[in-house]
Amino acid sequence: MSFESRWVQAPEHVTEMPGGLPAGFRAAGAACGLKLSGAPDLGLLVSDSPDTASAARFTRSGVLAAPVLLTQERCRLDGIRAVVANAGNANAATGRRGLEDAARMQGAGAMAAGVLEDRVAVASTGVIGVPLDTEKVVRGISDARRELAADGDAAFAEAIRTTDAIEKHAALQVRLPSGTVRLCAQAKGAGMISPAFATMLCFVETDAALEPETADLLLGVCVKRSFDRISVDGQLSTNDTAILMASGASGVRIVPESEDELRFGEALDYLLRRLAVLMVRDGEGAGRVGRVVVHGGVEEAVVRAARAVADSPLVKAALHGGDPNWGRIAQAVGAALRDLAPLPIDIWIEDVQVCRAGAGMPFDEAALAGAVAGDEVEYVVGLPGEGAEAEVIFSDLSHRYVTINAEYTT
Amino acid sequence: MSFESRWVQAPEHVTEMPGGLPAGFRAAGAACGLKLSGAPDLGLLVSDSPDTASAARFTRSGVLAAPVLLTQERCRLDGIRAVVANAGNANAATGRRGLEDAARMQGAGAMAAGVLEDRVAVASTGVIGVPLDTEKVVRGISDARRELAADGDAAFAEAIRTTDAIEKHAALQVRLPSGTVRLCAQAKGAGMISPAFATMLCFVETDAALEPETADLLLGVCVKRSFDRISVDGQLSTNDTAILMASGASGVRIVPESEDELRFGEALDYLLRRLAVLMVRDGEGAGRVGRVVVHGGVEEAVVRAARAVADSPLVKAALHGGDPNWGRIAQAVGAALRDLAPLPIDIWIEDVQVCRAGAGMPFDEAALAGAVAGDEVEYVVGLPGEGAEAEVIFSDLSHRYVTINAEYTT
Repeated sequence: MSFESRWVQAPEHVTEMPGGLPAGFRAAGAACGLKLSGAPDLGLLVSDSPDTASAARFTRSGVLAAPVLLTQERCRLDGIRAVVANAGNANAATGRRGLEDAARMQGAGAMAAGVLEDRVAVASTGVIGVPLDTEKVVRGISDARRELAADGDAAFAEAIRTTDAIEKHAALQVRLPSGTVRLCAQAKGAGMISPAFATMLCFVETDAALEPETADLLLGVCVKRSFDRISVDGQLSTNDTAILMASGASGVRIVPESEDELRFGEALDYLLRRLAVLMVRDGEGAGRVGRVVVHGGVEEAVVRAARAVADSPLVKAALHGGDPNWGRIAQAVGAALRDLAPLPIDIWIEDVQVCRAGAGMPFDEAALAGAVAGDEVEYVVGLPGEGAEAEVIFSDLSHRYVTINAEYTT
Repeated sequence: MSFESRWVQAPEHVTEMPGGLPAGFRAAGAACGLKLSGAPDLGLLVSDSPDTASAARFTRSGVLAAPVLLTQERCRLDGIRAVVANAGNANAATGRRGLEDAARMQGAGAMAAGVLEDRVAVASTGVIGVPLDTEKVVRGISDARRELAADGDAAFAEAIRTTDAIEKHAALQVRLPSGTVRLCAQAKGAGMISPAFATMLCFVETDAALEPETADLLLGVCVKRSFDRISVDGQLSTNDTAILMASGASGVRIVPESEDELRFGEALDYLLRRLAVLMVRDGEGAGRVGRVVVHGGVEEAVVRAARAVADSPLVKAALHGGDPNWGRIAQAVGAALRDLAPLPIDIWIEDVQVCRAGAGMPFDEAALAGAVAGDEVEYVVGLPGEGAEAEVIFSDLSHRYVTINAEYTT
């Protein structure tokens, strides 16, 4: 998989690998019949190291799917040794039965991985409001266990896919001052997907040795700069889950506040931002990808303004049509920062300034029209003051999005 | 104009009139060349009563158009005697020149109406970032002045239209305990409209006598239940303006906390909700109209949840496709009420309960599929607790919306 985006560049100490999990990990995928197509739909991921450290991040939705609730409450999030993930059924809005089903899934995963139940995280993605067929899930876990392999990452990634058109996994080699480690991730996500609503999942493995606190810190920072800064349709799922597991099998220890930690963090940042951009590219019906950067003012304001631009159906439709309609950028920022008028904002599209201190200004219309016709379009908004900066990467709004989401699917 | 919606019923004491302004008002429309089509684009509205009381509400966007800023700062909002409104140019993002142009427009309006400048409100709608041609505006005001008439409401309404496909004005007779008064309104709005971003404007006239405080109270409450509770695309304009003017020419005085005030408020509520529903029906590319009611919990939460459902592109696309996809309702509510999980929400679509305490439940799928195929679809969400309730009326997301907004328009 070659990946290119001017917004996500591989650091020099990171090398692309053809695949294969970091030392200490095995994974597999199996088809257990949850997907009507018969495609693989059950993924199992195991760390063989008893000292595995981990960290996790979940959706902040007020409506949580059962596997998210169960993993949060019944799992040692700093010591996850195994992940069971299924596609085809989100086990969301399934009430108490859903929690019991998630617990069954956890129990079977513990058996298969040979670890305690509270070391098993569960994740689901797919249709909502339909009870999970755990007979199928248990059979799938049993099948997957027999296939567990150090190069099972691609099969695992395949099993957690739903409507993803683009593969979302990567294997990296990371050169640190103290030695070389591996960093690997498998993800899925293409917006809130039909047939009901779906999800982003991301599982990251490394053979570096990290304290749980370090894993938590790095995952938190990197999720904030990646999955937390993308928008396909501005919708937050009930099932979003990101887990980082560190086996320590390489013998390279990442000491807090060391050069190793800095470099490892850069690699993780690259990996997650790369997967996040792939999710946007794979956004339902997506054609062009936009990036908005808002700077100036305070953190809370720039984040709010950037999200508003990225979520605006008017901005998204203009991006789709190759229309350098900067009025919609101004409108979205104004709507996000209410009661602050008059806001003397500056706007640039692809380095061409179109608005200065709140007023339109002359610009080369032909040059701008050409610039917004590319695959990636960048918008920069300057707010009064200095200091903060936020970006959001987003997909456009196309006819195909409407077609995909207007079909009778329930 | 016959108007029907099961969500907006005329009170018994309100009678539809064929048109014509309440006593004390005159209005006119003129074509001054701001619209490229040559259609009327300049509206003038005058109250001949020196005792006219008024109230106004504006967009809360942080990016305000010049006419909004000028009217807020240089106008006695409790004693507006005249309105000058133009279509074809929003005079937004036009910097200091825009403010001077708005001031010129106000000055010419004062001349034409024979009132002090600070009694003239100005409003603009149309393209953004383009300087307003005030030579045309002044000529238009001069032309309109000669046409001022008691039955000029339709011409005024015509002049403030942009891409509105549906006429949005109404004339009512309101029977109050103390006598009969007239209530009239002219509005425009169909989402954030091409060619750039646009606006909702609404001007309301009555010949009842109201104290400015009463006018302000009633307008505030009714705007909150109408224009503040609709969503075409969740976008807030830079130019939104609503003004209520009361000439007192009927001799019927609305005393605070009287039966008259109650009945007058009901009529105003009906009028503004009716115009708001017309804006949604006229939403860009709109086919079906949805209404979401969220009850339970506290005010802030139900409003947030209702807005999230109404603004969700997934819910809007499902509405468009006649898909009773309740998972998207649950997802939107969950995303709006973050960090409150687990939320045991109830969901009804057209009186069919599909989700109870957060879990899907069996329902008659055929009956539901039939119910969501109508022109108006109602969603009800119950949150834990009692007390608050909020509704939002919204348009669907169609292919035509994408087409309209993706075209190269700048």
